[in-house]
Amino acid sequence: MHYETIFQEIYHELQSIENIGRVADYIPELADVNPDQFGVHLTTVEGDEFSFADAEKRFSIQSIAKVFTFVLAYSRVKSSIWDRTGLEPAGTPFNSLVQLEYDQGTPRNPFINAGAIVICDILASELASPKENILSFIRSLTGVNTINYNPMVALSEKKTGFRNHALVNLMKSFGNIRNDIDMVMDIYFHICSIEMSCRELSKAFLFLANNGVVPYSGERILSASRTKRTNALMQTCGFYDEAGEFSFKVGLPGKSGVGGGIVAVHPEKYTIAVWSPRLNKKGNSYKGMLFLEEFTTKTRLSIF
Amino acid sequence: MHYETIFQEIYHELQSIENIGRVADYIPELADVNPDQFGVHLTTVEGDEFSFADAEKRFSIQSIAKVFTFVLAYSRVKSSIWDRTGLEPAGTPFNSLVQLEYDQGTPRNPFINAGAIVICDILASELASPKENILSFIRSLTGVNTINYNPMVALSEKKTGFRNHALVNLMKSFGNIRNDIDMVMDIYFHICSIEMSCRELSKAFLFLANNGVVPYSGERILSASRTKRTNALMQTCGFYDEAGEFSFKVGLPGKSGVGGGIVAVHPEKYTIAVWSPRLNKKGNSYKGMLFLEEFTTKTRLSIF
Amino acid sequence: MHYETIFQEIYHELQSIENIGRVADYIPELADVNPDQFGVHLTTVEGDEFSFADAEKRFSIQSIAKVFTFVLAYSRVKSSIWDRTGLEPAGTPFNSLVQLEYDQGTPRNPFINAGAIVICDILASELASPKENILSFIRSLTGVNTINYNPMVALSEKKTGFRNHALVNLMKSFGNIRNDIDMVMDIYFHICSIEMSCRELSKAFLFLANNGVVPYSGERILSASRTKRTNALMQTCGFYDEAGEFSFKVGLPGKSGVGGGIVAVHPEKYTIAVWSPRLNKKGNSYKGMLFLEEFTTKTRLSIF
Amino acid sequence: MHYETIFQEIYHELQSIENIGRVADYIPELADVNPDQFGVHLTTVEGDEFSFADAEKRFSIQSIAKVFTFVLAYSRVKSSIWDRTGLEPAGTPFNSLVQLEYDQGTPRNPFINAGAIVICDILASELASPKENILSFIRSLTGVNTINYNPMVALSEKKTGFRNHALVNLMKSFGNIRNDIDMVMDIYFHICSIEMSCRELSKAFLFLANNGVVPYSGERILSASRTKRTNALMQTCGFYDEAGEFSFKVGLPGKSGVGGGIVAVHPEKYTIAVWSPRLNKKGNSYKGMLFLEEFTTKTRLSIF
Repeated sequence: MHYETIFQEIYHELQSIENIGRVADYIPELADVNPDQFGVHLTTVEGDEFSFADAEKRFSIQSIAKVFTFVLAYSRVKSSIWDRTGLEPAGTPFNSLVQLEYDQGTPRNPFINAGAIVICDILASELASPKENILSFIRSLTGVNTINYNPMVALSEKKTGFRNHALVNLMKSFGNIRNDIDMVMDIYFHICSIEMSCRELSKAFLFLANNGVVPYSGERILSASRTKRTNALMQTCGFYDEAGEFSFKVGLPGKSGVGGGIVAVHPEKYTIAVWSPRLNKKGNSYKGMLFLEEFTTKTRLSIF
Repeated sequence: MHYETIFQEIYHELQSIENIGRVADYIPELADVNPDQFGVHLTTVEGDEFSFADAEKRFSIQSIAKVFTFVLAYSRVKSSIWDRTGLEPAGTPFNSLVQLEYDQGTPRNPFINAGAIVICDILASELASPKENILSFIRSLTGVNTINYNPMVALSEKKTGFRNHALVNLMKSFGNIRNDIDMVMDIYFHICSIEMSCRELSKAFLFLANNGVVPYSGERILSASRTKRTNALMQTCGFYDEAGEFSFKVGLPGKSGVGGGIVAVHPEKYTIAVWSPRLNKKGNSYKGMLFLEEFTTKTRLSIF
Repeated sequence: MHYETIFQEIYHELQSIENIGRVADYIPELADVNPDQFGVHLTTVEGDEFSFADAEKRFSIQSIAKVFTFVLAYSRVKSSIWDRTGLEPAGTPFNSLVQLEYDQGTPRNPFINAGAIVICDILASELASPKENILSFIRSLTGVNTINYNPMVALSEKKTGFRNHALVNLMKSFGNIRNDIDMVMDIYFHICSIEMSCRELSKAFLFLANNGVVPYSGERILSASRTKRTNALMQTCGFYDEAGEFSFKVGLPGKSGVGGGIVAVHPEKYTIAVWSPRLNKKGNSYKGMLFLEEFTTKTRLSIF
Repeated sequence: MHYETIFQEIYHELQSIENIGRVADYIPELADVNPDQFGVHLTTVEGDEFSFADAEKRFSIQSIAKVFTFVLAYSRVKSSIWDRTGLEPAGTPFNSLVQLEYDQGTPRNPFINAGAIVICDILASELASPKENILSFIRSLTGVNTINYNPMVALSEKKTGFRNHALVNLMKSFGNIRNDIDMVMDIYFHICSIEMSCRELSKAFLFLANNGVVPYSGERILSASRTKRTNALMQTCGFYDEAGEFSFKVGLPGKSGVGGGIVAVHPEKYTIAVWSPRLNKKGNSYKGMLFLEEFTTKTRLSIF
């Protein structure tokens, strides 16, 4: 496929649509990003790469990092991970706290904030140096050793993260956090601050399109079966309150972040990462969603 | 593939697992079903069919019928259907009423009870003789003219359907039901009472695996794009509070009913219907779920 | 006390405050009421009466009637009434349905709609001719035989009462409604339609200020202990989501209705009924609340 | 009245009832209390005192302290206190967090934990040395300078107070906490740890029965009007999810704590404090509730 031509076409089509999205502004590091940047990168399981615009520019991947920490925990504690978090879609954001209370401290899935915090708690127990180990894992997926945390972002997240602190305390009150709260939240706020480019994200997710094996290194990250399950989980839970919308319109498993990035996986075919900082009301990239919808429509490459 | 051999293998493996499920017992017609019946039927888009055990025995399809009414409404009112219902997974069953209240009478998706009732209201406005027209539609999908409502089941549903009456009244209070409540509920309780066999269900769903066209008649039911979207919707919303679990373990879009039936769709390949009346705690067929999990594992045929 | 002078004083003070309230408009019979009418009537346990303005004009007492039906049920089934309804304040109106669901069909108290419907169900089981018997009871409390239902209001309530139908169906699904729903709701919609004047309401409530005995007839309605308990219940639950506000500012037990009426009881002293149709956002009479606040402030006659 | 004789009578009557309550056990200091201690003390506004059993033994007053901090804040910031907390009963405990979320960080009333934490935040802004000043205030109400915090209890509360930390963080996320969270919670956990005897509590509350003036010192704490309002607030909100029950059965405004203490106020007459460590399921003293119910029944001294 001439993906780059398609990228250009869609990009120009979308130019005519006013971007009514708004950049995340709860921390200065996100608020100050140039909102009109745009990048997209596709990598096939055969190793072909297709880029457009700011595909190599790094941005704050935010919640996309929850896939990396989930995979790392899942590869270590296997099915016992489901004693600590559910795997069902979360319903309305409004319900986040009452749901935690109703389910006695067990988050609905590992991709909502509460679930990602539990995953950090699992990694805090499992890893010798959690923050270093997580970073090494992501670097090994991409082969890029300069990928790093942004300490300013981590600090800003911590300073404004009162709702996340409410979640972790509520879970701790139910016994579903085993380690010290500050230590767990330090990991959590750091993973939110990781910076990667579309190209790096696309490559880092490639094992999920390749039955669990990193193509360029041959390293197995997850079994074929657990890889499928991870993709299924992204399909139902990867977009907060918009998982149904994304599934409906794009038709691929994926994960978004409030930095404006989205990564989607076409099993056995490719991964695609897109970045556009302005967000829709649900907190997903406004143009990123439209771009991927157009992309799977034009290429007829949805899983459904 | 020698699907029948695989069916036998899985069936015998599952024999060793105690079926801890329980038959639905809120109406006598379901409570009195022989709980140990089992059937499975697979139809490929090329027209090959594979059967095992009670594949031709009819049972109460219950909520599986919500796919037929949704498709019929979607094919008529197109995207304006989303003015009346959302398309996101529903979260916990506990929240059903509060969610309707929070979302001011708009159900989360067309496959929860509230959403299916709204779809019946749309069909009541759109169709000349809703009950007859729905039945004709299902018959035309299968070519079997003996498919019918079970009036005893419809009556029992009505007599015990207080919670569904609560839902329709709440939605009416928000203006999201346009027709007379009793008339809408009469349609709703009837569609729940439709009886079909695994073979008939598998054939009726085949257009969803075939880009919207009924293979044996060539009739187009939905556009290719709307077909993909319907499959995506089943993936995220087809199993009540267990959509994530089914997606995770089986990896195909599908829909279940409390009669013990489940239909799953592998786009561009096949549909499979399985029936085992005992239900797990979430109201989905206990052995049916296990059977399909084993089936996609053995055949490595998940969409992920 | 020269209560009439005080009434005049307060009335004129309140004239200078713009009445920002709005008349209930969900049924035409309430929407069409002249919004600027005002009446107040106080009756002491010794039999003295003090009137001002439209004190003898009848209006729709609406939820105030829930006190009469509660008292009638309480006098018959005694403490077993608490098997069917709680006696705690209800929290936010938002929660009405979820609370019913959480408490498995048991309303929080007999003065919220759900609770009053359960009381109607109890009376449907207890009384030979519920609607006639309830009317006779109210007439006997006042000695006025022309007090009656307004059938137009009852019909309008029924036509628009979808949310109340949602409540009764939800409770029926939990087994907390024993009689036919339509029959119970017929009673409920009728009691909401009763019309009385401030004078009649003040006299009808007098037994609650007189240890359970109707002063002018000597008839005992409730024991002294149950009378105190009924007053306590009005104190904590009589004003929907504003029970705390009324208790805080007025300091007397009482009950309001969306017709703009409020009755308050000063145990061992008097009852006072006030009527002003414009309602505040919580559905209680805007000037009625202010009037009673001023009244207990000026007379220093609160129970606290 | 011969209150001491009545105390004895009731005490002996209650001896025949098995105490099915359980001592609070979330911190060792409460779990280790001798569960069968019992004390009661009544002080009239004229200065007469009536004691029985362990009336002079100090215990952990826990949430009873919320009345002291509320009064202190109310006397300083006057009506602007209601910009920070509501004054309505709270509904089910289940709703605590969702209600905070629904009401955007504003607690329902100052006597639930969230509300008391907001009051601590107000005092942190208002007072030079909050912990010292609060202690001085309570000492001045009783004239007893040995009343103090129990630092072990405060520490245990802090160590186990994850749910309270969830509440404060959620409120901070909505901007309803102005000071540093740790500083506010340090005040909160300390006030929970105050130790007083029934005699001291009864005396400390006496200004609430005396129109706002401490009888023995003549010091005015609150205006007469604000005193009535504080009593009204205790009536509707003083017993968590059992305010209706207490109002219904006892008929006096009051406040309870999980240390097993209850204080009730009969305006213009007396205050009474009772202590019995075993709690009912709602967290209020099992025998304390029964004792006060019997007491107001025998003396016919309820406000209703």
